[in-house]
Amino acid sequence: MSEKFTKLKALIAEVADLNAAQAVLGWDQQTYMPSGGAEARGHQLATLGSLTHQKFTSEEIGNLLNDLKAEFADADPDSDEARYLKVATKDYDQATKVPSEYVAKFAKLTARGHESWAKAREASDFSIFQADLEEIVEMRKEYVSFFPPADHLYDTLLDEFEPGMKTAEVQEIFGTMRAKQVELLKAIADAKQVDDSFMHVNYPEKQQWDFGVEVATKFGFDWKRGRQDKSVHPFTTSFGVNDVRITTRFMEDFFPSALFGTMHEAGHGLYEMGVNQEYERTPLNGGASLGVHESQSRLWENLVGRSMPFWEHFYPRLQESFPAQLGNVNLPNFYKGINKVEPSLIRVEADEATYNMHIMLRLELEIAMIEGSVAVKDLPELWNTKFEEYLGITPSNDAEGVLQDIHWSFGGLGYFSTYALGNLISVQLWEKLNKDISDLDEQIRQGKFDTLLGWLRDNIHIYGRKYEPQELVQKVTGSKITPEPYLRYLENKYSEIYGL
Amino acid sequence: MSEKFTKLKALIAEVADLNAAQAVLGWDQQTYMPSGGAEARGHQLATLGSLTHQKFTSEEIGNLLNDLKAEFADADPDSDEARYLKVATKDYDQATKVPSEYVAKFAKLTARGHESWAKAREASDFSIFQADLEEIVEMRKEYVSFFPPADHLYDTLLDEFEPGMKTAEVQEIFGTMRAKQVELLKAIADAKQVDDSFMHVNYPEKQQWDFGVEVATKFGFDWKRGRQDKSVHPFTTSFGVNDVRITTRFMEDFFPSALFGTMHEAGHGLYEMGVNQEYERTPLNGGASLGVHESQSRLWENLVGRSMPFWEHFYPRLQESFPAQLGNVNLPNFYKGINKVEPSLIRVEADEATYNMHIMLRLELEIAMIEGSVAVKDLPELWNTKFEEYLGITPSNDAEGVLQDIHWSFGGLGYFSTYALGNLISVQLWEKLNKDISDLDEQIRQGKFDTLLGWLRDNIHIYGRKYEPQELVQKVTGSKITPEPYLRYLENKYSEIYGL
Repeated sequence: MSEKFTKLKALIAEVADLNAAQAVLGWDQQTYMPSGGAEARGHQLATLGSLTHQKFTSEEIGNLLNDLKAEFADADPDSDEARYLKVATKDYDQATKVPSEYVAKFAKLTARGHESWAKAREASDFSIFQADLEEIVEMRKEYVSFFPPADHLYDTLLDEFEPGMKTAEVQEIFGTMRAKQVELLKAIADAKQVDDSFMHVNYPEKQQWDFGVEVATKFGFDWKRGRQDKSVHPFTTSFGVNDVRITTRFMEDFFPSALFGTMHEAGHGLYEMGVNQEYERTPLNGGASLGVHESQSRLWENLVGRSMPFWEHFYPRLQESFPAQLGNVNLPNFYKGINKVEPSLIRVEADEATYNMHIMLRLELEIAMIEGSVAVKDLPELWNTKFEEYLGITPSNDAEGVLQDIHWSFGGLGYFSTYALGNLISVQLWEKLNKDISDLDEQIRQGKFDTLLGWLRDNIHIYGRKYEPQELVQKVTGSKITPEPYLRYLENKYSEIYGL
Repeated sequence: MSEKFTKLKALIAEVADLNAAQAVLGWDQQTYMPSGGAEARGHQLATLGSLTHQKFTSEEIGNLLNDLKAEFADADPDSDEARYLKVATKDYDQATKVPSEYVAKFAKLTARGHESWAKAREASDFSIFQADLEEIVEMRKEYVSFFPPADHLYDTLLDEFEPGMKTAEVQEIFGTMRAKQVELLKAIADAKQVDDSFMHVNYPEKQQWDFGVEVATKFGFDWKRGRQDKSVHPFTTSFGVNDVRITTRFMEDFFPSALFGTMHEAGHGLYEMGVNQEYERTPLNGGASLGVHESQSRLWENLVGRSMPFWEHFYPRLQESFPAQLGNVNLPNFYKGINKVEPSLIRVEADEATYNMHIMLRLELEIAMIEGSVAVKDLPELWNTKFEEYLGITPSNDAEGVLQDIHWSFGGLGYFSTYALGNLISVQLWEKLNKDISDLDEQIRQGKFDTLLGWLRDNIHIYGRKYEPQELVQKVTGSKITPEPYLRYLENKYSEIYGL
């Protein structure tokens, strides 16, 4: 390797170390930190953050990237080196194109915005948050102006979370889905409803924890290279390929929260654990995008964890853990219960059939805000109108409507669609998986997941950030991200459950 | 405050943030980190460490310190500002006087030394560690040469752990103690022995944990500003005045390990929690020295925790927690058991009467090594000879002799005496405490510790690193560190227990 590349790698490895250190501090903050530690932790994270930014945006790194671009002009564009440079350059551009005054101003605004959002939600009064959100939208538009013009203003925002993804692509995907999903939901609403009352009795935490750990272990989560802890909001973080942390939370009168939560986070965790070890401390470590990450968590949570073959294996074990709660619930009824479809107001509680509708709504509003075709002050009313249209119910107040999510308060416009894209990608991969592993269902029925995990490692995990999401999905499935597999999956699954 | 001081404070606050971040990473490493995370954590700590060093040793900070020295020449030398500058300047000198090539070389040597020490201890073969220790001693001598000449070569090493302390002072203190402690131990050995068999039965971990937490809470440990976790080696660390972490470990067939361990670490923790809030993110935060820190842990562990008044209050509660184990052990016998004196080979298991002997031995060897009057290769034999002389027993191999402690492997020559100084200071403070709080025993007998903690806060904790240990002890007790109170304490306590 050229001397310059060695130098660049050493510098960027240190930046990766500092990012990992911030992740450790963030993990501790959400798992174990006593409340008294909050103020000092804020200082520590701010200092580390600005130092990391400073180190990464140094002229030295900029010059090295520039020189190496020329040096690698003729290299195989698919080689790890070429991809390293491509990803590092994109990260560098994103970090340097934005003036530091903007960054500081935006940090202050979103700190205030987070507070006003929390107050507004508490009081269920959108007007408390309105002025800050207006400013956030304006500043996001300003952010877009720092980058070369794209096909659509929103592209630049989307790109932060889903590299290379275009607004037009997302709009087309969601356009195809909308009508079909609405139709499916109407059919389900007219069918005989499912009884899930057994999920709402008391399930002691200890047994929930143990069962979740058993499942994650069977999936292949490596406890020598990771661990699970408790936090208010479940999340996954990693401090390197060999130190991956997942968290969960428990509701004693609703066991799916922890169980499917653990499967979901384990899916994220397996992705992080499966990245090429050689990408450690490089920009290629991590997931391809939030959407691809979500495809992994959703695959384990839904396509595996809410499937009949999975429970054919695990249900006797779950009944052993909870004899009083589940002893009289047979497998078909259990399966129906955990797959019950019911339009609900809150995104994070939504089932597989309604989830994407929540996302569509948000995406449309975000694009309209950025385009300027919708004023922030009109959001609550628009939210409620669209909600009724897509899900057939109307929030009774802003807290359970437009104010429910934290994302806009931290300026995360562009984030939401990754959740829905993750759902789509997961089923695209699942169709391909079933072609490549003909007895996948049977393996799952036997509680075996090694072939499945091996496939995901070889086809997705190993590449880390080497490919952009559309490239990766195309490479693996032969097609870009497309909604048809997901729509097929929903129709098949729910036709059977609801006898449509 | 002058503009320069404001600037200096801002720069040093960032250094404090980075040090705190390292402490978080270190805490995680010893409590929750999965084994797979070790390699990456090493990189993260190394990067953070060198960056912190770089930031702190900047010319900018050096110039500001220099300018402010002149500006504050006539200020009250006891003011917080003057002390801030004094401590910061000392830290700065210590960090800048040592060439970075030396630091890098020494880090490599001690990394290797740690490995060879672990192997040597495993194999109980000193020769495996000998060459590295020889080099470590040589490099510690080289370290001394970077500083202005002191009265004794060893002064510079001592100063790192016990600021301002002189070799001659320590030698005088230990010289006074040696004969008297040996004499006391002989008398105890000739007396009727104590039965502590009840300590070696099974005590379930859960009840041990709960009881330890109950005691720490009564002491005044603030769980909103701290927490306790488990680790292989108990320790205390803090990420600021309001985020203090202690750890403990459990031996199910020896409950004193966790119980007195928790009191010990809680003592350290209370110190960290009691520092002036205004010292947060300044060089004045933290403890005055390792010795003063140890005085706090020992005070709570021994002077409170192994006292009769304490157990008059807590013993019924302990018996409730462990009815089968302690139901038939009366309080006088329990008290004797937990205060049993028995010369043993391992320092960390030593009782109050023998502990200092372990330290004296090490101190003498360290000074001799630095003076060059003892060769490293002769250490094992010398160790055993002195051990027999001081404690009347001889290690049967190097693992339970000269190789037992980790300290020399990381180059910590100068560290050990702080343990003994802590014991001495704790009793000096205790004598003063009993003068100032006439009913201290009675308060403890009632399980009340607020007056005691208040006194420690007002006289010790609040000052953080403002005073050097000798200054602080003098200020509080009217005398420098002296062994007489400790000797009196031992004699009184053990005369009663052993009927001497």
